[in-house]
Amino acid sequence: MSAIHTQAPGVMAVAGCGVIGSGWIARALAAGMQVQAWDPDPDAIRRLRVNIDTAWPSLERRGLAEGASRDNLSFTTELADALDGADLVQENAPERLEIKQSLLAQIDALTPASVLIGSSTSGIKPSELQAQCQKAPGRVIVAHPFNPVYLLPLVELVGGEHTEAAQLEKASEQYRALGMRPLIVQREIEGHIADRLMEALWREALYLVNDGVATTEEIDAAVVYGAGLRWSLMGTFMTFHLAGGEGGMRHMLEQFGPALKLPWTRLEAPELTDTLINRVAEGSEYQAAGRSVAELEARRDQFLTELLAVVERYWPEAEGLGGRI
Amino acid sequence: MSAIHTQAPGVMAVAGCGVIGSGWIARALAAGMQVQAWDPDPDAIRRLRVNIDTAWPSLERRGLAEGASRDNLSFTTELADALDGADLVQENAPERLEIKQSLLAQIDALTPASVLIGSSTSGIKPSELQAQCQKAPGRVIVAHPFNPVYLLPLVELVGGEHTEAAQLEKASEQYRALGMRPLIVQREIEGHIADRLMEALWREALYLVNDGVATTEEIDAAVVYGAGLRWSLMGTFMTFHLAGGEGGMRHMLEQFGPALKLPWTRLEAPELTDTLINRVAEGSEYQAAGRSVAELEARRDQFLTELLAVVERYWPEAEGLGGRI
Repeated sequence: MSAIHTQAPGVMAVAGCGVIGSGWIARALAAGMQVQAWDPDPDAIRRLRVNIDTAWPSLERRGLAEGASRDNLSFTTELADALDGADLVQENAPERLEIKQSLLAQIDALTPASVLIGSSTSGIKPSELQAQCQKAPGRVIVAHPFNPVYLLPLVELVGGEHTEAAQLEKASEQYRALGMRPLIVQREIEGHIADRLMEALWREALYLVNDGVATTEEIDAAVVYGAGLRWSLMGTFMTFHLAGGEGGMRHMLEQFGPALKLPWTRLEAPELTDTLINRVAEGSEYQAAGRSVAELEARRDQFLTELLAVVERYWPEAEGLGGRI
Repeated sequence: MSAIHTQAPGVMAVAGCGVIGSGWIARALAAGMQVQAWDPDPDAIRRLRVNIDTAWPSLERRGLAEGASRDNLSFTTELADALDGADLVQENAPERLEIKQSLLAQIDALTPASVLIGSSTSGIKPSELQAQCQKAPGRVIVAHPFNPVYLLPLVELVGGEHTEAAQLEKASEQYRALGMRPLIVQREIEGHIADRLMEALWREALYLVNDGVATTEEIDAAVVYGAGLRWSLMGTFMTFHLAGGEGGMRHMLEQFGPALKLPWTRLEAPELTDTLINRVAEGSEYQAAGRSVAELEARRDQFLTELLAVVERYWPEAEGLGGRI
């Protein structure tokens, strides 16, 4: 392969080959990249190959990039070898601050200052990840994916105190080239955005199990057959915008705003100030992009009809597990 | 139509014809039922007809029951007329306790004791709804649907202090005949199950907007392109069961249990006691129904691949709204 070809799809170095690292590698290989994988455990390559083989049929159905091949992978237990010539580095060490800080400091020292270093951390803030990096801490950012990384498109990009906007823009391009949806987070916060939402839901679910209100199966059913179907098209704001009828989010906040004071979760809600109401209503109207609630509803119904035809083939009774719920 | 036919699909009385009431009516008509609608506002019939017309094309694509017709609908502003001969009554009054209590007491007085009365309340406990009913309070239960009611299958059934198990079983059959997934909730609690989960997520989302971490659009994107895709197949427990690799939920709790102590949401988590760990791990293993994590992963990937092919046709760029996120 010529140098130009190597540069075009690029070389990705992946540090740590667990479930998340393997997912990144499968995605990068499918996008036609060369991947240089590192793991301190020499046995990691066996599990990695198994994980890639599991992912590959789905990636083939999604469509491989030109030149994409599982053979474009090398594995080493020497960090410096994996980093050599990389255009992008992705770190997937265990979720412990001291481990990540030490590994990222080594990667920072071993790579040119222009190379972006993304961390898959679920919840650590980028400024903490940058703390021990000497050479170019600003290019060490959070690039948080979702499992399975080779299929789910979201990647949250978060810069730390040393990061410049241009570095996030460049990161956005690099992850977009991997077929992802980069979401640049405006302010660093523990858990970024999506994990905070998931964690709130998860904690409330644990209370329901703990208090004997519901089993895990019942809680999952409440998500799958109800809200989960909508969430694959609209998030929570657009869902409520549509719940407000023609008046949209503003009407919905008038109607259900008082419910924020009710004990419908263990989580206390923020005060619904005029500033917050405006921010939420204007945000939802911006998302509606001039489409009326009726238009959005028609579109939602069309989507749900198609979606139900797919998901019903995957519901328990389709597997002979009927009668459970 | 003969008396036998009328009995077989049955007669449903619907009290309150807003967005939720209209949704119930469209669903019941599509299931081949006769519907007797009541609303104190004589003008409600106009909006109701518009709402049914909006719903009908999706219902046709889903498949109508034999004899299903939009003409099987009558409308009245006299409550007693709407209730006459009904096999099932669904109440959809505004979400205020005194309004619902008073209306449900009237419905209770006007219908035979054997007729089930379901309330669409989002959060009120059934014992409170039963409080003013004299004749047969036990048959007044929560039957909480999800918008759009004519497409989303979940209905949460919750009995109050006067309700007997047999009444919930009968309710379960009646809602199943409407093509729904009845979920009998074991203990009454404000917000039932699904709304508590949604409310936890909603409150956390409001904090993120309030604190300037993200816009409504960014938060919705974090759901749609990430967790939302998984939630239409698996709820939060099975998602985490798969995140645990071959060790499943038990391994996941070991790894991410400590994160429950971290400020990843404003909501404080319950203590992860051995009892709770066992309940969650055993529940997830029960849901897995003997399928290995690898099998579940392969199934999830197959599902996501099909799902992505559908949802990508509905993502913003498919509507010429690209570049927003």
